[in-house]
Amino acid sequence: MSDFITLALDAMGGDDAPGIVVEGAARVARKRKDIRFLFFGDAKQLEPLIDKFKALKGISEIRHSDDVIPADMKPSVALRKGRKSSMRFAINAVAEHEAHAVVSAGNTGALMAISKFVLKTLPGITRPAIASVMPTVKRNKGVVMLDLGANVDCSARILVEFAVLGSVYSHLINKVERPKVGLLNIGSEEMKGHENLREAASILADHLQQADYMGFVEGTDINKGEADVIVTDGFTGNVTLKTVEGTAKMLAHMVKSSFKSSPLAYIGLPFILPALHKLKARMDPRLYNGGIFMGLRGLCVKSHGGADAVAYANAIEVAANLAEKNFNHHVAKVLEDMAHDDPDAEIEVDDEKPEKLAEEG
Amino acid sequence: MSDFITLALDAMGGDDAPGIVVEGAARVARKRKDIRFLFFGDAKQLEPLIDKFKALKGISEIRHSDDVIPADMKPSVALRKGRKSSMRFAINAVAEHEAHAVVSAGNTGALMAISKFVLKTLPGITRPAIASVMPTVKRNKGVVMLDLGANVDCSARILVEFAVLGSVYSHLINKVERPKVGLLNIGSEEMKGHENLREAASILADHLQQADYMGFVEGTDINKGEADVIVTDGFTGNVTLKTVEGTAKMLAHMVKSSFKSSPLAYIGLPFILPALHKLKARMDPRLYNGGIFMGLRGLCVKSHGGADAVAYANAIEVAANLAEKNFNHHVAKVLEDMAHDDPDAEIEVDDEKPEKLAEEG
Repeated sequence: MSDFITLALDAMGGDDAPGIVVEGAARVARKRKDIRFLFFGDAKQLEPLIDKFKALKGISEIRHSDDVIPADMKPSVALRKGRKSSMRFAINAVAEHEAHAVVSAGNTGALMAISKFVLKTLPGITRPAIASVMPTVKRNKGVVMLDLGANVDCSARILVEFAVLGSVYSHLINKVERPKVGLLNIGSEEMKGHENLREAASILADHLQQADYMGFVEGTDINKGEADVIVTDGFTGNVTLKTVEGTAKMLAHMVKSSFKSSPLAYIGLPFILPALHKLKARMDPRLYNGGIFMGLRGLCVKSHGGADAVAYANAIEVAANLAEKNFNHHVAKVLEDMAHDDPDAEIEVDDEKPEKLAEEG
Repeated sequence: MSDFITLALDAMGGDDAPGIVVEGAARVARKRKDIRFLFFGDAKQLEPLIDKFKALKGISEIRHSDDVIPADMKPSVALRKGRKSSMRFAINAVAEHEAHAVVSAGNTGALMAISKFVLKTLPGITRPAIASVMPTVKRNKGVVMLDLGANVDCSARILVEFAVLGSVYSHLINKVERPKVGLLNIGSEEMKGHENLREAASILADHLQQADYMGFVEGTDINKGEADVIVTDGFTGNVTLKTVEGTAKMLAHMVKSSFKSSPLAYIGLPFILPALHKLKARMDPRLYNGGIFMGLRGLCVKSHGGADAVAYANAIEVAANLAEKNFNHHVAKVLEDMAHDDPDAEIEVDDEKPEKLAEEG
């Protein structure tokens, strides 16, 4: 690979693919001149779309595939039957060092299953996690939260690995000198919560090196902006992420309905519009698009399935930043230092046998 | 006991006790004429406070206690050392049929531990749960959510019991003819989530009688107003509850800061004030005060520790409604019908041995 960052785009994944994928890529191409794109998907559809954007000229290559993995296909089936899909080909390009990272707005479960199978986990990482940056009350300060759904149950060791992954991201990409890491729990007392949380807390307090373990945090702390990284299991993380989304929608709905039922408010509306626009810009969910698959031997970013071009461009930028900063190299280094510091914390690599069988079956 | 509803108030529990407890009771006494109060706490402090309110005259009795359980005392310690506390005496009054229900804004863990020990669980109920009614996008339609923190891990059977408890509340108090019950999970596919959730789902689909099982719901569904009852384990429920709270606070903060940074908005403010007041009234967290301990052989309602008199009055009304509608009688009836319908689903009562030992130790 050259000095350019090459990104493999699963051009057929997502509700409005391939249109928004190509348009999103063009938005990024206008801003950054260090990126090349490999578009995986139906060449007949992609060619005229790409031709429309001057910014994509000379930096885009189409890799044809006939197959697309449907949004509702089970991960195990996608792994077996999706071997000629745009998603699989795009992931293969990362495994074969043709691309630095893959971006897809397709089926999340399939993307995780295929990525795990094709890319494998990093040395010292037991399981990959899905991470995302969420807004906080502090302007321009996001919090990295993981796992958001890849692993329903997580041992203490896995939670510790997530803490490392999240804090490396916080440091490299969010530019936090020494990230503060919190473990999500139901109370700040040492007594509360699951056994694995208490065990993870004690390992983090003793062995976390490039970040500070700040202790247990609660649901109310997620958006306070005190923690830079919040670690939890994939079940709790997924429910939490969706609860934030649901609560925000409910409040927006209530604000609207209060205004609708108050005729006076319409007189005031023109005056408050600039404030509302500022608010909307700050809370725009498209700015937070990009679920980062961490812990794999290759970079993979999941865009929201309903993404538009702005949101998709954001997911592309997340992938480009991870590649530019050499995220995985830094993770490996931190894990090595931790293992060196604590000879008991041996590096174990998951050999993924069940999925190998699943694919061959 | 007479035709009146007698409520035992732990007058010393909560940040602003006993002031807000007495004032809260007075607010309820002005609205409802069917209630009597037993105030448990320091008689010297309580007497002058109660004397200030005409509405409390003739319907209030003070039961003196010297002890108060501190907010940060561990539940196991409170159980042993709090035997002469206002909280313990108030719970005893329910066990001894002197009062229909107890209300406390004190230490949640202590209140649960002592209530479980003194009152015991209902026949057919393995563990008590903490439930609360949360707002939804639908006006005047709340959703009953449980467990919010009493049980970190929950078997399928326990989740099914929670579904019964929640749906009886939804029917009796929220007046929903046939409540719709959802199980909180990370996806709507049958495949996802923990084993106990899948097992609970299959029992609910087959055996829920006085309510309809609607399947798995996600975090985004909590406030949609489609489910009347949402069942989850105490870990997930507690994190979710606090995430809703944290998200609402963050959004309120962002709205304020957008307005502050926009001078034009101040001109519009007087016009939108009525709409803002409507919004505030609808979202007032004090209206949702009252964590209901369900599944015990006695009614117990936990008020938020930071409650003011309005919030505390709401918790008292929740307790009064439960007593008036004979909540526990209906729960017992539904459980009996279910056991009759399914002879395999035997009634097991937790004998609480560990806690008996803890108190005697």
